[in-house]
Amino acid sequence: MSIEEHLESKANILRLHSIRATTRAGSGHPTSCLSCAEIVATLFFKEMNIDPKNIDYIDNDEFVLSKGHAAPILYAALAEIGVIPKEKIPTLREFSSELEGHPVPRVKGIRVATGSLGQGLSIGLGMAYAKKLRDIGRRVYVLLGDGEIAEGSVWEAINLAGRLRLSNLTAILDMNRLGQSGPTILQWDSNAYASRVKAFDWDVFICNGHNIGELVEAFGGAKRSNKPSFIIAKTVKGKGVKFLENVEGMHGRALNEDQLQEALEQVGPKVRKEDFHPTNFIKASIQAGGKTADFSIDTDYELGEMVATRVAYGKALVKLGELNKNIVVLDGDVQNSTYTIYFFEEFPNRSLQCYISEQNMLGAAVGLQTQGFDVFLSTFACFLTRAFDQIRMASYSRADLKIAGSHAGVSIGEDGPSQMGLEDLAMFRSLINSRVLYPCDAVSSEKLTCLMANTDGVSYIRTTRPKTPVIYGNDEEFHVGGSKILRSSESDEVAILAAGVTVHEALEAHAILKQEEINVRVIDCYSVKPLDELTLRDAYEEIGHVVTVEDHYVEGGLGEAVASLGIAPHILAVRTMPHSGKPEELLAEQGIDASGIVRKVKEILG
Amino acid sequence: MSIEEHLESKANILRLHSIRATTRAGSGHPTSCLSCAEIVATLFFKEMNIDPKNIDYIDNDEFVLSKGHAAPILYAALAEIGVIPKEKIPTLREFSSELEGHPVPRVKGIRVATGSLGQGLSIGLGMAYAKKLRDIGRRVYVLLGDGEIAEGSVWEAINLAGRLRLSNLTAILDMNRLGQSGPTILQWDSNAYASRVKAFDWDVFICNGHNIGELVEAFGGAKRSNKPSFIIAKTVKGKGVKFLENVEGMHGRALNEDQLQEALEQVGPKVRKEDFHPTNFIKASIQAGGKTADFSIDTDYELGEMVATRVAYGKALVKLGELNKNIVVLDGDVQNSTYTIYFFEEFPNRSLQCYISEQNMLGAAVGLQTQGFDVFLSTFACFLTRAFDQIRMASYSRADLKIAGSHAGVSIGEDGPSQMGLEDLAMFRSLINSRVLYPCDAVSSEKLTCLMANTDGVSYIRTTRPKTPVIYGNDEEFHVGGSKILRSSESDEVAILAAGVTVHEALEAHAILKQEEINVRVIDCYSVKPLDELTLRDAYEEIGHVVTVEDHYVEGGLGEAVASLGIAPHILAVRTMPHSGKPEELLAEQGIDASGIVRKVKEILG
Repeated sequence: MSIEEHLESKANILRLHSIRATTRAGSGHPTSCLSCAEIVATLFFKEMNIDPKNIDYIDNDEFVLSKGHAAPILYAALAEIGVIPKEKIPTLREFSSELEGHPVPRVKGIRVATGSLGQGLSIGLGMAYAKKLRDIGRRVYVLLGDGEIAEGSVWEAINLAGRLRLSNLTAILDMNRLGQSGPTILQWDSNAYASRVKAFDWDVFICNGHNIGELVEAFGGAKRSNKPSFIIAKTVKGKGVKFLENVEGMHGRALNEDQLQEALEQVGPKVRKEDFHPTNFIKASIQAGGKTADFSIDTDYELGEMVATRVAYGKALVKLGELNKNIVVLDGDVQNSTYTIYFFEEFPNRSLQCYISEQNMLGAAVGLQTQGFDVFLSTFACFLTRAFDQIRMASYSRADLKIAGSHAGVSIGEDGPSQMGLEDLAMFRSLINSRVLYPCDAVSSEKLTCLMANTDGVSYIRTTRPKTPVIYGNDEEFHVGGSKILRSSESDEVAILAAGVTVHEALEAHAILKQEEINVRVIDCYSVKPLDELTLRDAYEEIGHVVTVEDHYVEGGLGEAVASLGIAPHILAVRTMPHSGKPEELLAEQGIDASGIVRKVKEILG
Repeated sequence: MSIEEHLESKANILRLHSIRATTRAGSGHPTSCLSCAEIVATLFFKEMNIDPKNIDYIDNDEFVLSKGHAAPILYAALAEIGVIPKEKIPTLREFSSELEGHPVPRVKGIRVATGSLGQGLSIGLGMAYAKKLRDIGRRVYVLLGDGEIAEGSVWEAINLAGRLRLSNLTAILDMNRLGQSGPTILQWDSNAYASRVKAFDWDVFICNGHNIGELVEAFGGAKRSNKPSFIIAKTVKGKGVKFLENVEGMHGRALNEDQLQEALEQVGPKVRKEDFHPTNFIKASIQAGGKTADFSIDTDYELGEMVATRVAYGKALVKLGELNKNIVVLDGDVQNSTYTIYFFEEFPNRSLQCYISEQNMLGAAVGLQTQGFDVFLSTFACFLTRAFDQIRMASYSRADLKIAGSHAGVSIGEDGPSQMGLEDLAMFRSLINSRVLYPCDAVSSEKLTCLMANTDGVSYIRTTRPKTPVIYGNDEEFHVGGSKILRSSESDEVAILAAGVTVHEALEAHAILKQEEINVRVIDCYSVKPLDELTLRDAYEEIGHVVTVEDHYVEGGLGEAVASLGIAPHILAVRTMPHSGKPEELLAEQGIDASGIVRKVKEILG
């Protein structure tokens, strides 16, 4: 039979798997699978250059299912090319199965988690950019739903990919007209989509998404294009099963047994006996690499020297960039505030200006790290909230990301609350398996940045805008889960736990109290997650009174982290509406400066 | 003199204020003010219909400064039309001044906070939609920077405004070519911007942003358009001061005294003696209204009846919609999952389908509430993370928002982690002045929804996917900061604090333990923020052992909230990587089901 007949047959095999598996699971999105069966079949059985035996190698073409709810058809395709056993398919959505309701990298052949819509194209952008950096002549295909294209993050990716002229990136729009609650804005208006995407410097191809010939032609055009390419595939939701085709209200509904039987009778006969195998299989050989040996860097500061931790972060990035050629740094147009500018100037080829689009920056970083790069990304701490959903999904992608947020807390001063990171500790602590680091001086900032470079998972470093004095010697060592006891005596009456800018306030408070013959212990909790549980418990049990002080809201910050250990701290934090002013005025207003700490200590000791 | 000469003079007066004030403050963004001086002057002194004496009334035209860092020129314009005293201007960025580094509603004539870029157009969309709803024939003007247009949220707003054909909405792009760290993507390519925006069904006008005549013509065209209108104003960053004009690296830098003198000498002579006052002033008379008397609703459930709290939320919205005609409900294409569909069907004219673009939905809600509407908005709890930055800014806008997040926790089951809200409590607790409510049954869900309708600030209600049994009588009363003691005895050995789905697990645990003659107190913490401090402290002091159990990550959740009160709870929460499975399997895996609670209680009692 012809290649078209072969692929049509394959498409219907994928349909059978999808409707059977979702009915067996009792939930899922069969109609969303049916609309893209020909697209997925054409990609997996003809267009994509992949090595099923070495699917994890990076010299394969990549496929990202941005419309993650169509997971069953992706699992079916992976099974049909032999990446996962076909017997697995019926375990869809079961507790013990890695074939989850939406894709996660637990499944061989899947590199990222999708299911929160509108994130796949950014990830694909990162993958495509990475393959160009590595000079790997493979392509990245991203399958988009027409509902998710309303997400601004998709347009952030379209904008940057057009700018970067990523000719190895192809997006396919499964234009099936129906969202979850009703029709999409543009329904089947291919030309409206085309003019929008073309305006962002992409090549656009329009085709019937159920016609193999037209799909093959569109993919051919995409391969010949010197720009990123966008294929608008007109499809029918529920295609192949008459009572589901283009019917509203059937999104996310599995078929019951009777409906399944009827559906199988309609789809089954369209499956032909296979007479030949896919012709696109290749031999892949390049492993991702990256994740190389531990690095260490030397610092050269004078005690008491005034340096902002954000500046030290920038200096450390350059040192790490020398040692590790896999490091790529992203920034959102604030390089001169986060100080990634040092890296950008030293290593322009491993620096990516993402402009003011934090969601796409996060997604691109996730894509880049799938290709073996060690990715650092930076912006103001407060603007990382813009990408919380992407950060959350990165943790489910088991991504290794090194994120730096600058301008933390009210200590930024005059710019006001819109620029103050006051919820970033809460946000990053809430991620599963995250690490949260918070340096108070230049030495610890450089050492913690280096530590982050050697740490898996999503790690976050919080830097400060104003200069702070260097308090650590250049030979000081730091580790994840550590802390530093900066002041202590045999007769400490209160333990003060601080981090970042408040460490210096705590040291000043210690000096003031000492003159009044009140001894306090001062501990730098530079590792906010995980905390140095042992040291903090010892202090609590020995001293009894603990005060935490942080330039962050109470909720989800250092104080609550300490409290969750069973220690009952007095929490000094930002509690009233922040506003503009001098840093020292704002720290004082919130009672998180030296005199606020002194007041609290005296109140405790009554 | 001619109106053009008059407006040119006004523009330079605004320039003088802006550079003087920022130099005095020692920080700020003078060059970003200078580029938009003619735009702002033309709007405030000619185009906008405003009543300076009643600027807070809603039958004024509205101005939103999306590029919030140009705040000084907005303050200058408000001072020049007499809304705020000119003597205030030099207090820019001072601790005691309401003229903050970026705009906040503390300033008369400013309704929302801006400064996190890319949010103003969504707010303007909400305002324009609200004026249409109220049949107020006024216009909304949003001034955008060309750096922030890379934010996807801007394109979400452009997309929906085009769809809604908001002819009373005009966006002005201050195309000054330079971002913070370098040139923007499109620099001065007006046609590229034009083709992009036109493709989203807007009318586009291109002009020289320093030519009053061209600006007036463009604004005229905008007023005649039956679509939303986008004015691309080509400008020069730093315009009017030769050594600043189109110079890189001058973003966010105040001038020193010498530079200021030189600048004043260049700008000063362009100011003419005024010979007439603005002609656009009107008499405004319509107050926002809304925020009406307290409402209460009746429920009609049977004890033990199985109803999902998200369904009860939907039912309550309809009852509230009957009582309060100011209620408008927004949803992100999941009406049939959040159950706002009941309201959408009953009150289509007060329902806004925002499609899958959560950031724009949040911004639109902020805009709507400035016009006196009581705004509810809903989507899956996890997808609210997409709009964390907008939610954060809403709190600085002092906005009244009622937000509902459905599908909380692992209890959603088979769909997997991408659809699970596991960090929403942390996110909403971290907002200043927020309220967080979490019902466990249909009665409390309806009553808490009603409570939320009567509560100012940003309030959040967390609903659950599966059905739960009704445990409260229809006459039960709830309040912000309250809790319910569901089980107690003279001999309680442990207090179990639960909320939402875990309340039912706690009740089951109570029954199991009772058979073994172990008494435990069960408290429903339906008000997570603020907590019922008194009741919880009493339980702790009386019983000594406290267990919190929640379907949420440990960080920033119920357990840490309780711990922050000085109570040292044993925290049962989601601690391992979530995945697909049956709700009961997943609750058991995390140890937050009845048997997990029983295990923990026995462990404590050793």
